[in-house]
Amino acid sequence: MKTAQSDVAAMEKSVTGMDALVYHGPGKYAWEAHSRPKLQDPADAIVRVTATTICGTDLHILKGDLATVSEGRILGHEGIGVVESVGTEVSLFSKGDKVIISCVTACLKCDFCRKRMYSHCRKGGWILGNTIDGTQAEYVRIPYADTSLYFLPADLDEEASIMLSDILPTGFECGVLNGQVKPGDSVAIVGAGPVGLSALMTAQLYSPAKIIMIDLDDGRLQVAQSLGATAVIDSSDGNAIERVLKLTGGNGVDVAIEAVGMPATFDICQGIVAAGGRLANVGVHGKPVLLHLERLWDRNLTLTTRLVDTVTTPMLIAAVQSGKLKPAKLATHRFDLDEVMKAYDTFGNAARNGALKVILRSRATF
Amino acid sequence: MKTAQSDVAAMEKSVTGMDALVYHGPGKYAWEAHSRPKLQDPADAIVRVTATTICGTDLHILKGDLATVSEGRILGHEGIGVVESVGTEVSLFSKGDKVIISCVTACLKCDFCRKRMYSHCRKGGWILGNTIDGTQAEYVRIPYADTSLYFLPADLDEEASIMLSDILPTGFECGVLNGQVKPGDSVAIVGAGPVGLSALMTAQLYSPAKIIMIDLDDGRLQVAQSLGATAVIDSSDGNAIERVLKLTGGNGVDVAIEAVGMPATFDICQGIVAAGGRLANVGVHGKPVLLHLERLWDRNLTLTTRLVDTVTTPMLIAAVQSGKLKPAKLATHRFDLDEVMKAYDTFGNAARNGALKVILRSRATF
Amino acid sequence: MKTAQSDVAAMEKSVTGMDALVYHGPGKYAWEAHSRPKLQDPADAIVRVTATTICGTDLHILKGDLATVSEGRILGHEGIGVVESVGTEVSLFSKGDKVIISCVTACLKCDFCRKRMYSHCRKGGWILGNTIDGTQAEYVRIPYADTSLYFLPADLDEEASIMLSDILPTGFECGVLNGQVKPGDSVAIVGAGPVGLSALMTAQLYSPAKIIMIDLDDGRLQVAQSLGATAVIDSSDGNAIERVLKLTGGNGVDVAIEAVGMPATFDICQGIVAAGGRLANVGVHGKPVLLHLERLWDRNLTLTTRLVDTVTTPMLIAAVQSGKLKPAKLATHRFDLDEVMKAYDTFGNAARNGALKVILRSRATF
Amino acid sequence: MKTAQSDVAAMEKSVTGMDALVYHGPGKYAWEAHSRPKLQDPADAIVRVTATTICGTDLHILKGDLATVSEGRILGHEGIGVVESVGTEVSLFSKGDKVIISCVTACLKCDFCRKRMYSHCRKGGWILGNTIDGTQAEYVRIPYADTSLYFLPADLDEEASIMLSDILPTGFECGVLNGQVKPGDSVAIVGAGPVGLSALMTAQLYSPAKIIMIDLDDGRLQVAQSLGATAVIDSSDGNAIERVLKLTGGNGVDVAIEAVGMPATFDICQGIVAAGGRLANVGVHGKPVLLHLERLWDRNLTLTTRLVDTVTTPMLIAAVQSGKLKPAKLATHRFDLDEVMKAYDTFGNAARNGALKVILRSRATF
Repeated sequence: MKTAQSDVAAMEKSVTGMDALVYHGPGKYAWEAHSRPKLQDPADAIVRVTATTICGTDLHILKGDLATVSEGRILGHEGIGVVESVGTEVSLFSKGDKVIISCVTACLKCDFCRKRMYSHCRKGGWILGNTIDGTQAEYVRIPYADTSLYFLPADLDEEASIMLSDILPTGFECGVLNGQVKPGDSVAIVGAGPVGLSALMTAQLYSPAKIIMIDLDDGRLQVAQSLGATAVIDSSDGNAIERVLKLTGGNGVDVAIEAVGMPATFDICQGIVAAGGRLANVGVHGKPVLLHLERLWDRNLTLTTRLVDTVTTPMLIAAVQSGKLKPAKLATHRFDLDEVMKAYDTFGNAARNGALKVILRSRATF
Repeated sequence: MKTAQSDVAAMEKSVTGMDALVYHGPGKYAWEAHSRPKLQDPADAIVRVTATTICGTDLHILKGDLATVSEGRILGHEGIGVVESVGTEVSLFSKGDKVIISCVTACLKCDFCRKRMYSHCRKGGWILGNTIDGTQAEYVRIPYADTSLYFLPADLDEEASIMLSDILPTGFECGVLNGQVKPGDSVAIVGAGPVGLSALMTAQLYSPAKIIMIDLDDGRLQVAQSLGATAVIDSSDGNAIERVLKLTGGNGVDVAIEAVGMPATFDICQGIVAAGGRLANVGVHGKPVLLHLERLWDRNLTLTTRLVDTVTTPMLIAAVQSGKLKPAKLATHRFDLDEVMKAYDTFGNAARNGALKVILRSRATF
Repeated sequence: MKTAQSDVAAMEKSVTGMDALVYHGPGKYAWEAHSRPKLQDPADAIVRVTATTICGTDLHILKGDLATVSEGRILGHEGIGVVESVGTEVSLFSKGDKVIISCVTACLKCDFCRKRMYSHCRKGGWILGNTIDGTQAEYVRIPYADTSLYFLPADLDEEASIMLSDILPTGFECGVLNGQVKPGDSVAIVGAGPVGLSALMTAQLYSPAKIIMIDLDDGRLQVAQSLGATAVIDSSDGNAIERVLKLTGGNGVDVAIEAVGMPATFDICQGIVAAGGRLANVGVHGKPVLLHLERLWDRNLTLTTRLVDTVTTPMLIAAVQSGKLKPAKLATHRFDLDEVMKAYDTFGNAARNGALKVILRSRATF
Repeated sequence: MKTAQSDVAAMEKSVTGMDALVYHGPGKYAWEAHSRPKLQDPADAIVRVTATTICGTDLHILKGDLATVSEGRILGHEGIGVVESVGTEVSLFSKGDKVIISCVTACLKCDFCRKRMYSHCRKGGWILGNTIDGTQAEYVRIPYADTSLYFLPADLDEEASIMLSDILPTGFECGVLNGQVKPGDSVAIVGAGPVGLSALMTAQLYSPAKIIMIDLDDGRLQVAQSLGATAVIDSSDGNAIERVLKLTGGNGVDVAIEAVGMPATFDICQGIVAAGGRLANVGVHGKPVLLHLERLWDRNLTLTTRLVDTVTTPMLIAAVQSGKLKPAKLATHRFDLDEVMKAYDTFGNAARNGALKVILRSRATF
């Protein structure tokens, strides 16, 4: 009988199965049944995902842009959840702990981890939803759990918490810290997507005098203004450089943050950075860019790239708790976790939908 | 009578005239009679040049590469001499003081000078032998003399002193300081010309573990070895990148210093810099380079450019005095000042002549 | 005739005389007639003082605590005014410019100035109202005017401007910068007088998580709360250390700022600074303190002292202009300049009068 | 039968017993039989000690100065050895590996470890020979072995290696790094014992212009000269301060390193540090010192304390390997491990014996 069979299936699923968003090669992906992850290493934890989200990088993966992602991979590297089980080496977390999942996995023992460059951990780095299964699922296995999970404080807004997995530390570390934003600085951020807006929010921790936000999408620029931009520039007319120079007395900005990942946006950055300034690249680039050293060789310029190391996550958690940062404002759409396909549609057409971050919440209670 | 006339001419020259190396447009230059410089501003000094040298940049000027240099300009931005006269605002120097001339002129009052970024001084920067007459002459006018001259200590080797005008601070500030060389680091320097060798010498002030020198010229690589390079690579076979990676266990170097100014040498640098490393550009570039952000965006790279600010000149003078730096080793050829045309020939064919720095000494006694 | 004589006197005063607050030895001072300052050096400017204020240091001088201040000295090192005349070497300012007078005089040429340590300028430093006549007068001579004056922007609140002479850069440089306040830090400031409150205001430029203000005066602690303190402690019960430790989970604060200058307040600081923390001394001390190295030798502590260098004045001016800092809130009392004796009474009994900064305004229109 | 019994005892010892230097309260200690350490935690390793040494701190313990050391404790926190066994969580080391034992134990997971302040690890720090049994024994248990041991390179001199446990990183981190020694600096080190000499050797990695060594013991000052001091001062005449000021043109030194731990030596340091200078305390103090803030409050001084974090150990190992540091020169006396009582006698009368570091080598072959 059909009913009986599905009862058995449901029962089995409740013990060893789950549903997950699986990548099946360029353009192909589905929310489907999948075996539930198990502890593989004594430092692992299994986390029941209570909420997750989609990153721009996930869209790149779906296009087939990332060779490291193989078919059959569960996507996702952001989220919050509840610890389900832990390996014998996990000492900080236990079953039942509410946690923020960090997008970066760190062994802490390798040479890069010793230098706090967790992004390049010899055994970790960004592997979740990339070289191992990720968080867009009912359960996820987290290697080196002690160092890749953070306690989710009871008083922390849930939607804000999700931004702490990746987007907020990325904007802060790669944009603001690398850009060395200081009180009184003029800052320009090219790209008002979730990462650019994260840079905008976290830059204000250092009280720059000016933050100019540049994008093609007026909706996003409006959001930028509500989040503290002191000026916004719609770059669709091609005059962004001239306008930034005008706003800065011809000198350019102390800090230019590239938060898109394309040659055109990088070009704006090299056109607006002042002598002695910093150009902090945050965007994920798929192509080389033309660096105008013939103009820049004598400009005392510092250009940086970085994958987020998540070393500032504890501080950012505290800053959100204290109300100094309000990243929940980046959440524009909400879905149940099993509506993830619909969420991808919405996020994939972000401009049309006015989408920034989409929240996917498990139907299971916390 | 001819004799009488030339006597008069000589007498006049002895008071108001001099000889100088004058640029007359691309490819044209001559050692010729010129009026002697006069004080134009109360902060000026007139210096009688006792020794000078030729920079690679002077060769660029002769080719017509620098639009800022107009016809009729006396070239040269390096040298030592004796103060002949000073304006009323000059308080540190007086007639008769032996001095090192800095290639950079600084007013100290503008916003850039206040930040110790003298290279971008609103009224100065690199102007000598560029937008005002330079040091390849019997006399030179030095604006903002108090801040653009340094006392030449009696115990300082004269040939060493000349290297303190430009070459040594350039290698140190743009290469070593910007590259943040630290004890234990691995460093690679692409280009074993005078600037690259200056970076090599001054990098050793920070005790890196390895300094790999890369060039096409085996003669220069031999010099590099004698000056402290721990490994040298002749890059003419196109395998420099592979060989550096092999020497660094596949990781690349902590610091890559570009001391040539060409796309090919810049490419070596981006190919050899380790994750978390620094790429310090020193070379003067005439063309843009292709920056491989598609590979480097997640490498935690810091890329810097800089025109020398000469803020470290006093420290470098002390380091030469104490014997920790021996820049006189860069002097390979010596001429009288009035043989400057011959000196240009020698320096212009540096590889063939094994030339690094050519010393031009005035026949007048010090 | 009496009238005629005083007419003459008034006329003479109007040309060569003025009134000023003159120190005549411990406990003795008067607002009295004095000759008007003249240009003595080509780098001088004469400034007509439009508003000034009194510093805690002035009270120390009146007690005879500062051996450097001789009898007959005009006091005062803060204020704003209008340039009356300039020497031939002054290039940035001209007659009629509205200016902020910096408490520190800098020649820019000496070794300390070259390191941006203007406070120890070989020819300047804090000399105004100390070794040369100061600003509590109708006119004041400012040496090295180009580097010791700042343009007073038209849109800047006058009372806010006065705080930029000394109090705001002192709290910021000696307290906040030396304390290396960072986002997320816990900070405690001992002393809620004008300097401590300046540290409180400027610390917020770096978004610390907690700022605990400690003082004996509840009125000042109330002001501290209105200016952003997250907690206040009345230390009169002798339990300040325990209470700070309780507020910081037993760890102590990342940054302890001493803004009083007494052994007892320094002791609180050494008792509350966390392992790895910074203790920034701002207070002017008249006696040695007992440093508990037997407890602190292994605590990875950084203790700093500093006289303000005023290198951040341009940034602070911009921060006030942009509304990020509101130092005018420190002004509690207002007097005419010729009421300075009354102002000293009020400020000398600050606690009883609830006084922070007293503003002394010239009757002459701006 | 006696022989038979001791045979059994020897056999038993060979499996579960060992000899060790045990502290039995102030003034009482003995080389005696002790049970052999066992793995207690999965992150532990047991190391067979092949060589160890005695630290000045051990002498303090024997006097009863350290309340944390209880009776029955095996002393010693330095040494090299061979891994005998490892717990299940140890992933970097295996039985048979030759290792350097770090004096500091680090869990890597706590808040202090995350900041690279291993000295204050919540579960570790300096515990060896302090709160847990130490290295002056045939075997020692090392907690968090992966992060508290370092591979001993085959080409590394054994006596040099022992200096890497504590003495060399202590002089470097607490003295040189905290003192921010830079090329061209003038440095004074008060105390020419093993730690002071370690600071002397490692300071040279940064090429200071002058290193002045101050001590009461002319023998140690001679060693200092052979190790690179540019000047030495016998402070027994009480004129050390005057002499340092004379050697520095009246300015004092950029960096003063206190490597003794007494009020008198700290006083020398505060008397000789230049305005803008750094005073790096390395010495272990038993009493408070009088800090002359009445003279120092306006001197822009930075005073630091620190327990070694051993974060630079990998770099120092490399520097020794490359020949840039030669710490084996600190070894003056050699004993067999079971002669440790004699070694304590020699080291306890260091001045009379001309002792710096005494090497204790196990009779067992490596």
